[in-house]
Parts: sequence; structure tokens; C-alpha cells
Amino acid sequence: MTRPDLLTALTAPRAIAVIGASADPDKLSGRPVAGLLEAGYEGRIVCVNPARDEVQGLPCHPTLAAAGGPIDLAVLTVPASRVMAALHECAEAGVALAVVFASGFAEAGEADLQDELARLAESSGMRILGPNCIGAMALKNGVVASFSRALHGLEPVIGPVALVSQSGAFGACVLSAAQQAGIGVHSFVNTGNEADLTVAEAMTALAEDPEVGALLVYTEGVSDGPELLRAARRARELDKPVVAIKVGRTAEGALAVASHTGALTGSDAVYDAAFEAAGVVRVDGMADLVDAARILTVGKRAAGDRLTVLSMSGGVGILMTDLAGELGLRQAEWDAEWQRRMAAVIPSYGSAANPVDMTAQLNTEPEILACALDIACAHPGTDVIAVFIGVLAGDATELVDALARVETDKPIVVAWTGGDGTPLRRLTERGVPAYDDANRALRALGMLVRHAGGSATPAPTEPDPARTAAAMKVITRARDAGHKQLDEAQSKELLRAYGIPCTPERPATTPGDAVTAAAEIGFPVAVKLLSADVAHKSDLGGVSLGLTGETAVRDAATEIMNLARDAGIGDVRLLVQRMAAPGVELIAGARVDPVFGPVVMTGLGGVFVEVLQDTALTLAPAEPGRVREILRSLRGSALLHGVRGRPAADEEAIVDIVVRLSELAADLAGELAEIDINPIIAGETGALVVDALVVLQ
Amino acid sequence: MTRPDLLTALTAPRAIAVIGASADPDKLSGRPVAGLLEAGYEGRIVCVNPARDEVQGLPCHPTLAAAGGPIDLAVLTVPASRVMAALHECAEAGVALAVVFASGFAEAGEADLQDELARLAESSGMRILGPNCIGAMALKNGVVASFSRALHGLEPVIGPVALVSQSGAFGACVLSAAQQAGIGVHSFVNTGNEADLTVAEAMTALAEDPEVGALLVYTEGVSDGPELLRAARRARELDKPVVAIKVGRTAEGALAVASHTGALTGSDAVYDAAFEAAGVVRVDGMADLVDAARILTVGKRAAGDRLTVLSMSGGVGILMTDLAGELGLRQAEWDAEWQRRMAAVIPSYGSAANPVDMTAQLNTEPEILACALDIACAHPGTDVIAVFIGVLAGDATELVDALARVETDKPIVVAWTGGDGTPLRRLTERGVPAYDDANRALRALGMLVRHAGGSATPAPTEPDPARTAAAMKVITRARDAGHKQLDEAQSKELLRAYGIPCTPERPATTPGDAVTAAAEIGFPVAVKLLSADVAHKSDLGGVSLGLTGETAVRDAATEIMNLARDAGIGDVRLLVQRMAAPGVELIAGARVDPVFGPVVMTGLGGVFVEVLQDTALTLAPAEPGRVREILRSLRGSALLHGVRGRPAADEEAIVDIVVRLSELAADLAGELAEIDINPIIAGETGALVVDALVVLQ
Repeated sequence: MTRPDLLTALTAPRAIAVIGASADPDKLSGRPVAGLLEAGYEGRIVCVNPARDEVQGLPCHPTLAAAGGPIDLAVLTVPASRVMAALHECAEAGVALAVVFASGFAEAGEADLQDELARLAESSGMRILGPNCIGAMALKNGVVASFSRALHGLEPVIGPVALVSQSGAFGACVLSAAQQAGIGVHSFVNTGNEADLTVAEAMTALAEDPEVGALLVYTEGVSDGPELLRAARRARELDKPVVAIKVGRTAEGALAVASHTGALTGSDAVYDAAFEAAGVVRVDGMADLVDAARILTVGKRAAGDRLTVLSMSGGVGILMTDLAGELGLRQAEWDAEWQRRMAAVIPSYGSAANPVDMTAQLNTEPEILACALDIACAHPGTDVIAVFIGVLAGDATELVDALARVETDKPIVVAWTGGDGTPLRRLTERGVPAYDDANRALRALGMLVRHAGGSATPAPTEPDPARTAAAMKVITRARDAGHKQLDEAQSKELLRAYGIPCTPERPATTPGDAVTAAAEIGFPVAVKLLSADVAHKSDLGGVSLGLTGETAVRDAATEIMNLARDAGIGDVRLLVQRMAAPGVELIAGARVDPVFGPVVMTGLGGVFVEVLQDTALTLAPAEPGRVREILRSLRGSALLHGVRGRPAADEEAIVDIVVRLSELAADLAGELAEIDINPIIAGETGALVVDALVVLQ
Repeated sequence: MTRPDLLTALTAPRAIAVIGASADPDKLSGRPVAGLLEAGYEGRIVCVNPARDEVQGLPCHPTLAAAGGPIDLAVLTVPASRVMAALHECAEAGVALAVVFASGFAEAGEADLQDELARLAESSGMRILGPNCIGAMALKNGVVASFSRALHGLEPVIGPVALVSQSGAFGACVLSAAQQAGIGVHSFVNTGNEADLTVAEAMTALAEDPEVGALLVYTEGVSDGPELLRAARRARELDKPVVAIKVGRTAEGALAVASHTGALTGSDAVYDAAFEAAGVVRVDGMADLVDAARILTVGKRAAGDRLTVLSMSGGVGILMTDLAGELGLRQAEWDAEWQRRMAAVIPSYGSAANPVDMTAQLNTEPEILACALDIACAHPGTDVIAVFIGVLAGDATELVDALARVETDKPIVVAWTGGDGTPLRRLTERGVPAYDDANRALRALGMLVRHAGGSATPAPTEPDPARTAAAMKVITRARDAGHKQLDEAQSKELLRAYGIPCTPERPATTPGDAVTAAAEIGFPVAVKLLSADVAHKSDLGGVSLGLTGETAVRDAATEIMNLARDAGIGDVRLLVQRMAAPGVELIAGARVDPVFGPVVMTGLGGVFVEVLQDTALTLAPAEPGRVREILRSLRGSALLHGVRGRPAADEEAIVDIVVRLSELAADLAGELAEIDINPIIAGETGALVVDALVVLQ
């Protein structure tokens, strides 16, 4: 018997078994059958309970085997102690997806029991959802594999939104809020403890359903970062927006996650980078998810970020203009000719400049709105439109009509404050994304623009075997010498293997050697302690900068070697290097994130990193475009362009170093623990690595 | 005949005249009478219209005089051309407050006509609201001096919220939204063009009404900053929170304000400082105003900022913990003993640490909530409590009861997502601030905490006449010499008059003088060009630093004098000053804001100001506590405490300089245009002004 795939088992199972089914529709164990009956599921409902012949009007079987197949989806309502036996029964019966409600697994310290579930899923090919979850639903076919009451007593609104949540209560609240708001839902999956199926895998499956138009995701932290990236990239290929909440953004929140799920969330900054790389729109609140769904499922996409505001209140127009800038929306520019056209349709005491003030005259002359909308839709400098209406009496049919009838590819969002909510409901029914507050409307529009502006990083290209081999040679040599940390010379050799420019330098073993080296390199030079035993040579006084002659070099070399020997250091050598020309100081680094793998970081040096922690990161390998973005996201980025008489820096040379570093980190992720480059000095032309430290895994 | 005061005229007028009253209740000119009848106004409604004998069932008079008095409030529905005549009639009839709807004044370029209104108000003592406004309402007594339909057809919810809005449409939308949300409103005043009555004056009047509990304010920028501060400080004295929106926060928004009202909004950063100084809670969205009103009018005040979250979803608990940090709420600490107490009342698989996860078990055991609330209320480390509930079926009566019945002085805010909204309505009816979204609930709680944590700066104390006289002597000398700008020596003399420590220094007129001065002061010294003609001496090469001997001083002095003479500068002198010991560099400054008067600014020097514009300001004079706050608000403030081996700075010495500067700016606001101090150098003990420039008005 071949099992259907996960998506089919979830959305169109031929039969659903409820193991431990109860006759009481209010009990947890009775709710799945009650839910299936209420939802009008048309497949076969198989009740399994050795204690009963009948459950809620349906025949009940003593075992799954006795019921006969095929059964695609099984819901286990039994307690933890009986879960494994029931799962074995399911696997033997050819079940494709088993949903386990029971708690009492990893969340209660019973990790071993949870591992048994995982192993069974692995060995049998049957997928398991949960344990410790409220289950899953697929609304169109009335699939209710859940004890949630989120839809109880409601006429479900079926639509394109797939909701995947690690938390049951969180997901159920969003589901309920979305349905109350009239937003059509395709499915809801709660992954709970994720013994087998993860949020990312559920996303992967649902993204492929042609009836899914957008994915809303809640997670407290994923274990399978690459799968999440794949799912999100695939969704983006299919133009299905992914909007995600990942809690534990702050130190306090991350601690709360640890106490809630017992798991570390990973670095929140890496999640930001990963979501950015995969084109996921990250939001922070439950209402944001629902608000996002409202606009993202309409199907229109933003061609750009240039916003025109049409408001019936000048004040709200300004308020929206203020907010737009913070959301990354640009104010569309209206030239004199276009302002003239707008002025022709609005009252003379309004404002034809963006934000357009249509004035409260809309109350008595609703046709103003249709005219203003036509002009804004025609205006070539406008990508997206936000309309504010505050109608306070009357049913406003003409305004609703104007908004619902306008024919344009440009996304239009409506904020309608005041009144009794009727226009909002009518607009929703007619497919116009409408909100009760200007800020909510604009935030939703911002998400649409972020989705359109986002892009999935292309899949990494194959590494260049020659440079990887050259880098590996450096690493092997260090490992052979018993070192887990490369000294400065080796660290730079590794960087040079990837074409990263470093200061010219020579190692030396005596002060005399150092003088010779300095003469070869050319003055001014720096003399530094070189030792496999020392990570922070400055702290030891092991760095002497700006030496301009032979005597200075000899004296500095002698002093450094004496200091090091006095400190009891065994491996005492010197590195003589050419002083870099003055310029802007930056830092860069790479490490391997436990969830998402190699990441690369950069920032400005000095007070920017020491006082402000002004750094930005992205996944490795990184494209030049992405590196340019993170550089520009630095608070001090203006420094690169030469502020107040300071020299500018060669941005492309910096980008090149960070891109190459990211490739190195990606190619050798299995070998490296950490790379720290501090500083890079960037002049008006070119940039050089001045110091670097590589730590192996 | 004595006129009643403004508040009485607005909230309890003995008679209301409608001038230009129309028989058609749908016309603008007919709506006030219709509104008064609908609202059940019990005073006398006086219709004035020479064209009619009767209006909407009431007798109509040809003139106001013919109607007889006393008439406290008059509503003018007549067009701009007839406003002045009608206002004169009102003034003669002893009207206390006249409301002018008509547009066609300053907003239409008719500033002169508007000035006539202002002059009449001034000369007659009659207050005028508008023109170009939708009027005012006072709900309890059915006073409708407005053509707004915001309350049309609704049973008004009367309560403690006074709403004052410069914009009519904005205010009407908030009024409608608040009423729909079940929030009780006391009054609504729309000031429009503000020929006479301003937002600030309306606030002042309403704050005194014992039935007003909170003020919601919208403005695009005020002309009378001091009045706004007085009103807000008075409201704070009376413990009436003021929550305000001031649009034009961004450059784009400020431009839109200019095009909307023709007025400049003033510096938005100064508004922030003024609101902070007066204890006003500033918000950015319409919904924030309504959300604020919901919690602020309950009457409970936060004793501190320590938050405990009780959630029935672990995930939402974490989400709220993340957000709390951003809102300035601290996570309350629960020690082992208190966690044990909490653990005794929640399920074992929940979390007894803050955020408390009460689990979805609340669905079947609602009594958990009452128990958890009791413990959180008793917990001494908790100031405020946020409860999240996502109940998805059932009427949840027990949960609502638990929330409504709990007896505590601690503010409790509820977020209730999902379900059909019935519990939210019940909670609102029972005085529990409840929201449909966790983030909204927490933002509202944040406003309550900001209100409690805010404080009004005490009224400025009297200036010290001796130091003011000393400072004036410096200014008079400069003015007598025909200078609008003090040279560095004079600038520092002015600062020293206020006890601000500056580097020891001597003026000199020749290189020989300079050498003598240097020897007196002690090396190392700086030699600077001193000239009334030059503001930026560095640009001319007029500064030579770190001179350690007589020859160096003589050479530097000669070179600077030559450079200056070559540049054609007439007034060429020198200033020899002791080099300040190295330390943290800061800047400080003062200027006179056109709206709020003298302000003082400070920031860190170098890249912090040049690249990051990392400065903060407050109103002058400023208390040490306020100056400490703005210093700590700097992004680079960690630098003051010595980051990564950098030396710390004497924070109190810096605070002392800025406080004294603020006192100087306040005492001499009429004389000064600008003071720039750059740099202050702060060591581990003490801080010194190294350079300063004062520009007179």
C-alpha cells in the first residue's frame, strides 16, 4: 500500500481515524469526531476505541486493523503512555500522517519517549505531527485533526491563508481572529514538540498546494534552519508571501523561550538575516499576521515603494506621511502638472500635493474619491496608494463602490475610522484590504512592499576547488602542529587563499631578522608578536606601530620578544608588516550559527563597535548586493562616504573583502569556529586586512 | 451682564444661539439645532435667521438682540462674509463663546479677515472658536455647537475623556472610534484656524472641569508653547493624563503640515522635549489615543514599571515579554518562593516564572486565572499586570468575572484575542481595560506607566540677579562695540559668569605677549586666533595645539597672525590657553525655539555628533535630573562610563555645565540667538569648556 504524500494526507485524506475517540463531543478525545461531523468531512471517519461500539453516531472499532484501510490520517487522543503502541498500529495500517495530542514528552522531561516517536517516523516513513499539539485542519475538505474549538459554531471562511504555528494557543488565536475578520483560511498546522514534523517541513508541504496563497508562520526557534530557508525560497518562487513571527527577540524574551520550550532560540540577529535572505516578512504582533493576510491574499503586488496618500483629513494624511518614512515607504513625488490634474477634482481648500487632502467634502460629494483614485492610479510616480476615510454617518455606499470598482494593478489599502464598521465589512467582502486605523493600514502596505522588495538569495554556487584546497592546506598545517587557532600570519594566509588583500608582511625570529624584513617591505612598519599561544597580543604590549627606521624596528623587536618571554610564552616570533595608510577602520567576522550555518558580520571600528555595537550580519555566502545592504544599514555608514571633511572609503573594496570572507566561511563551515578581522583599513582606493584571527572547530 | 467663563460657556451654557439656523437638519447650517434637539439639550435654543419664523419646530428670531438674553454660547453657520457682523452682534449680546464654522480665512489666504476676529475677541472679551472648524460638544448637557455627525444616531457614551483637536476630521474620527469602543467622552473641541482660542487654551479650560479625567490632544504645531506647557502641567497636578499626537514628526510630514496649514511646525525634537518636560504622553496613531483613553480613564495609576505577564499561551507570553522591553517596561522578577506559590495554582506543564504560562487549561479550569491574579497582585515586585486570553468558544463568564472582581490597586490590562468579542465588551462595561491584541494592550499599559513615570518640570525659579548682571555686562560690552557675536574670550567670560568652568587662558596681541601668557598659564598650551570677525578659526589655520615650549608658542603665534592678516582680517589677536587633559569630548549648545523658548542641547563629540547626530535636548532651564536623563539617552552614553579600557568621564561635572548653560539660556533668552560649546572635555574628575561661541539676537 503506498502512502499519499504529506500534503494529500493533510488536505485530502481518504479516511481519518480517531484513536481513543470519545462519545462526549466536549471532551478533548471527543472533539475531533465532533469537529469532522460539524465541518462536513466527506471521507470516511474511522472511530477506534475498544471500549465502545459507537461514537457520536458512528460505528467504532476495537483496533485500527479491524477497521480496514486505506487510512491516510490518524488522530491520537490517547495519553502519552499509550501513544507508541497506537503509532505502531498506525504505521502498520499504512497511515501517512499521525497527529499526537498527548503531552508528557520532551516538554515534561521525557526526551527518550519523544525520541522513540522520531525513530518510528524515520523507520516507517509515516510522518508524525506533535506530540503536545492541538493538531491540524484543512478547511476546504472539512479535515479536522484537532481538538481546537477555534472554528466551533462558526461558518468557516475558506481561502488562501495557510497558518503554521509551533504554539497551539497562539495559532488558534490567530486562526480565530482571522476568521472573525473575514479572512479566508486554507489550513492550520500546529507542530508542538516537533518530534518529527517541523514548522519548516509543514511550510514546504503547504507552499506546494495551488490553493495556498500566503503562509503565516509562528515559531519560537527552529532546529532545521536550512529547511526553513528552502521552504521560504520555494514559497517566494511561487509568489506566495511568507509572514513570520519569531519570538525571543530580546534577551528577556529569549530567556522566556528557553524556559518555555527548553530550547535555545539561536541568535535573533541571525533569524533576521535568514528571513531577509529568504524573503520572509518578519513581524512582531499577532494582529500584524492578520493584517498582513488581509492585504497579501488580495493578489496585487507592489511594483515599488512610492506611496501616494489620499485622505479626507489633512491631519491623518500627515500622520500617514510621518509613518510611511519609518516603514520604508517613499513619498511619491507629484509634479506641478499632476498636482494640477488632482486639483481639478478636489475642493480648492484641499491639498493636491501628496498627501492629498480630499477634505471632508467627501461626505457630501463622494464622487471626489473615484476621481482622485483614477488620477493616483494613472500617476506614473505612484506604486501604491493608501486611502483614509473617516465617514461618520450614512452607509457610504458610493465610497465603498469607488474603492471596490477602481481598476488598477496598483495595490490600494484603505483605512476607515469611525462609523459602525459596515463599510469595512463591505470592503473586505469585495476584496479591498481595509483596516480600522491608518497606522494598521499603512503597516500592512509596508509588509506588501517589503514582500515585493525582498528577494531570495540564490542557492550558493559550487566552491572553487583550487582556493578551497589552498585554504585547507593552511588549516591542515595548523592542525598537524596541534593548533586550534591560527596565528596572525597563518590567519592572513588563509584569507589570501580567498583573494582577500592583507598588509604586506614578513615573519621574523630575531630583532636582526625584523630589521631585514622591514627594509624589504619598506617603512613605516609595525612589529607584532607572532605566537600560536597568544590571541590578544596588544594586551601583552606585543604591538609596536608606525616604526620609521631600522633602530626603531630593532628596539621594538627586542622589547616585544623580552616582554613575551618574561610573560612565559613559549612560541615567540615576530611579524613585521607595512603600516596601512590611514583610512576608515572596519571590522569583519564569520562564525557558524547552530541553526542557519555560516554567517558573516561587518561593522565600523573604534567607538562604533566598542560603544555602539554597530554591526550587521548576513548569511554566508553573501552576494555583493546583500553585503552592500548590510554595510548601508550600519548607523555609522555615512562615515564611508566621508563626513565633514573626513576621507571617504572604497566601499566596493570593503564589499569584496566581506563577500570573499563569506565564501570562505561557507566553503569551510565544517572546519571553522570563528574568524575575526580587526581592523580592515579602507582608503579612498582599496582596503586591506591589518589583523586577523582564525579559530578552528 | 457678566459673561460666564469659557468652561461654563462650553459645558453648561444657559442658552445657545444658532445664527443662520436652517430648517433642513441635513444641511450644515441645520445640523446644530438638530443635534441639540437629538442630544436633549435642556437650556434655551435660540434660532436666529431673518428669513424664517420657525426652525425645526423652534421659534426663530430675526436678530440676536431680538431674541433677548442671556446667551452664553453662539454658533455661527453663516459664510465668511457675514461672520464679522454676526460676531459683533454676539459680543454686544454678552455671548461668552462664539463658534465660527465658516472657512475662507487664513487657510484661504484671508489673514486680514482672520485678524479682525482676533482683534474683536481681544477687545470684547468674548472668546471665539475657529474659524474653519467643526465646533465643539459637551456630551453630558447635550451641548452640540458643531455640524459634525460623529454622534448622529448614536446613544452617546458619557465619561471622562476630553478631546481637543486642531483638525476637525481627525478629532471627529477619534470621537467616533472612542464612542464605538464604548469609551465615555466628556467633550470635544475642534480649534480649526485658532484665530483666538488655541488647543492649549481649550486644554487649560477643560483640565479644570472635575468631570474630566484625561485629555486627548491632536495638534499640527502650536503657536503658544508656554500656554501648552502650563495646561499640561496643570493637568498633571490634577492627575489628569494628557495623551497627544503632534504630526509632522518627519521631514516629509513637516512639509505636509506646512502645505496643509501654511504654518511651520517648529522643531519636532523640541516638541518631544516639551512634552517630556510637561509630562505629556506622546503617541503616533489614532488608535493609540483611543487605546490610551481606555486605560487612563480607569483611574488606576502605575506605582512603577515592573510588569508581570499572565498568559494562557506561552508563545504570547514571550511575545509580550519581547515587546515590554521595547516599551520601557521592566520584567518583574519572581524569586523561587513566589514561583513556588504561582506553580501551586497553574498546571505543572505551565511556567510559573514571568511570563507566567497559565496554559490552555484555562479553557476547562477558569478558576486558575483568579488564583494566578491573586498571587500576581500580592507579589511585591510587580507594579502592573498584563493578562492574555485567547478563548475560542463559550462565553467565558468565569474568566470575565475573575478579571472584573479582582481587588487591587495595581493596573491590570487584558488582551483577549479570538472569539466573537463578547468578553471584550463585557470587560469594558465592567471597567477593565481590554484590547483585542496583546501588542495594543501592552502599548496602552506602557502609556500608563509613562504617565506615572513622567513628571512636570517645576516652574523656573527666579534668576540670580548678580550673575545675570555679570553676564549682561559682557553682552552690553559686545553690543557697544557693534558686535552680534562674542569672540572666544568673551564667550567664555559669559559662561564663567554662570560658573561654567573653562580652560585657563590669556589674550595676547603679539607673539611676545603670547610667550609671556604661556609661561604664566603653564605648558602645554594652545594658541588660537582671537577675532570678532571670525567664527570658525580652525578653517583658517587659526589653531595650534599642544605647544610645549616658548619657541613653539612664538612660532605658532607668528604664523597664526600672518595667516589671519593675509586673509584680510582686521581684528587679529591671540588667545593662549592651557591644553585640557585628554578625556571624553562632548558638545553643548543653547538656542531659543520660536514655540517653546530657550532649549539646551548636549551630545558626545567626534563621530557621535558628526556622523550620528547623536544629540539630545531639553527645555531651559533644566534640572540636573532632566539633564542626566538626556545624557543617558545618547546612543553613545556608555562612553561616559569608560568602555573597553577607555577612561570614564565625570558625569556630574558635565551635568553641572549643561544645567548652568540652561539657566544662562533661560535668564538671557531675550538676548541670545545661539550658544555653541565645542568641545567640553570631561576627565575622570571635572570637565572644562575648551571652545565656545555665543551669537546675540
